[in-house]
Amino acid sequence: MNDRILRAARQLPVDATPIWIMRQAGRYLPEYRAVRDNVSFLQLCKTPDLAAEVTIQPVRRLGVDAAIIFSDILIPLEGMGLELELDDAGPRFPTPVRSGNDIRRLAVPDPEQSTGFVGEAIRRAKKALSVPLIGFSGAPFTLASYLVEGGTSKNFLQIKRLLFEEPKLAHQLFEKLTQTIVLYLQMQVAAGAQLVQIFDSWGGELSPLDFDAFSFPYLRRIVTTVKASNVPVIIFGTSMSTLLPRLKRTGADVIGLDWRIEIDDARRMLGPDVAVQGNLDPVALFLPRHQLEQRASDILRRAGPTGHIFNLGHGILPPTPPEAAQALVDTVHAFKHG
Amino acid sequence: MNDRILRAARQLPVDATPIWIMRQAGRYLPEYRAVRDNVSFLQLCKTPDLAAEVTIQPVRRLGVDAAIIFSDILIPLEGMGLELELDDAGPRFPTPVRSGNDIRRLAVPDPEQSTGFVGEAIRRAKKALSVPLIGFSGAPFTLASYLVEGGTSKNFLQIKRLLFEEPKLAHQLFEKLTQTIVLYLQMQVAAGAQLVQIFDSWGGELSPLDFDAFSFPYLRRIVTTVKASNVPVIIFGTSMSTLLPRLKRTGADVIGLDWRIEIDDARRMLGPDVAVQGNLDPVALFLPRHQLEQRASDILRRAGPTGHIFNLGHGILPPTPPEAAQALVDTVHAFKHG
Repeated sequence: MNDRILRAARQLPVDATPIWIMRQAGRYLPEYRAVRDNVSFLQLCKTPDLAAEVTIQPVRRLGVDAAIIFSDILIPLEGMGLELELDDAGPRFPTPVRSGNDIRRLAVPDPEQSTGFVGEAIRRAKKALSVPLIGFSGAPFTLASYLVEGGTSKNFLQIKRLLFEEPKLAHQLFEKLTQTIVLYLQMQVAAGAQLVQIFDSWGGELSPLDFDAFSFPYLRRIVTTVKASNVPVIIFGTSMSTLLPRLKRTGADVIGLDWRIEIDDARRMLGPDVAVQGNLDPVALFLPRHQLEQRASDILRRAGPTGHIFNLGHGILPPTPPEAAQALVDTVHAFKHG
Repeated sequence: MNDRILRAARQLPVDATPIWIMRQAGRYLPEYRAVRDNVSFLQLCKTPDLAAEVTIQPVRRLGVDAAIIFSDILIPLEGMGLELELDDAGPRFPTPVRSGNDIRRLAVPDPEQSTGFVGEAIRRAKKALSVPLIGFSGAPFTLASYLVEGGTSKNFLQIKRLLFEEPKLAHQLFEKLTQTIVLYLQMQVAAGAQLVQIFDSWGGELSPLDFDAFSFPYLRRIVTTVKASNVPVIIFGTSMSTLLPRLKRTGADVIGLDWRIEIDDARRMLGPDVAVQGNLDPVALFLPRHQLEQRASDILRRAGPTGHIFNLGHGILPPTPPEAAQALVDTVHAFKHG
């Protein structure tokens, strides 16, 4: 078993910096598109054999140091009683959550009943893997944004209005989401996830003080619960550079960085007792190979030999050539800290 | 003449912190909608009488300490030889700039010939104003993003591919944009603009090292040229918290902040010898009045009595009640530093 990523998450020495790639199971891979041609995105998430297959694909092709279970952050929300439409136009909740009644109606579902297919996909993927498997969930604020906006948003007016005009209702919503997320992650860990990433994709839309009030306490609870199972936790969001010290205070083992900060600056802000993940701009995979290698090496040098999981600063883009992803993985594995 | 904003930009003592509001001439004002009902957005920009009228409206209603000429950052690009469509669905360049030939074909237009209506609108607005008038332009990278992507973008793949795959072409494009912007701003200053804001709306999409290579040198040239006319310069962008020290090194007099950073933290990062502008979350205008006042006062207290221009951290949103904007302006003007 290649356990580099688990060692890096705990800041133990590694023989090479581990790497995985956000959205590594995705449209840039022809073998993924071959599976996806026959099923919808949601069907793929809900069919354990197929979800396990696409989870394994990037490990098989690229030799990355971890798999991440193929799913979507919005998957556990259906079990709360919400209709979800997920297609190439992006996610939509046709009946967004807005009122106190909407929030009271939300269930905290039994994760095996509502999302047992994720657990089953994890169990099947694990049988074929010789690298750790990462489970994941969206963060409460990010999931709430989708629920309240009804989909993706430009200025997050509806969710922030809920926070500002009805803070008690907002906290009720975050409470139910937190309970749902905790149970969902515990199910993934029970099924075999050895590491967990929390995606707070929209967390950087909040001011630091609003983050303290509406996001931090819930993130800390989730991190604490997952760590009680001895599973390391990564927290990742974009445009969160000013929130890094707060992310560390959640107790997360690894802080995921986007490309907006130099990784050595981030480490200085965070202090030595936490690992970092990142942080190559996904578009850098379109660079000529030599320059891609230079950029990757620069990040590796700045990050240092321990407590670093290499990744992109955001998901890999569908038009990326798989050969560039391969070159990146090979560069990271071949790099020697001087 | 109320010159608080000019004094604050130069860090001189003021009797009250000045305030203006990004997009203060806009759809949240019924008097703006009344004008806009009869003309398209582009027609409004190009009709000096009407542009001057909507420029003045928020000063008349709210008592803000500056007007900003009503226009759009994309306006000077038509004169470079590009067809621009600008409607409620957002801006589109039907023939995006992609190749070396596309870039070579771009003109550096005479600003009076291509955008004389902006100068004329400034002259007309000035006659009715007893507060300073702000001119503005987009930053080279932000304008290039629209040109190359053909409109707004989610991941800036096309513009970044140009930077990464064809850096020489990218620099040729930035060079032409910089020359166009400089002439355009000089025309606005000659027409009477007393302060200039550069909107680098998408500048925060670049990593710090790419910002250094592709954005910083051009911003510094623009700032230097405008300051040669003794007109202070504000630089504003979102998700740029990690770039603040670099923005200061452009020589800008004022650094505009979004709401992602506490304003006292920003001042600590920037040092004492530069002014700041910001940084209330636009959605805070939906808070109950008492809490809106609390948030505004907190920013005023953190920013301190000199070198601060109050503003939102991004443009005011169309559904905002004008009464909330009024309450904000009154709160800022009534605030006494203890």
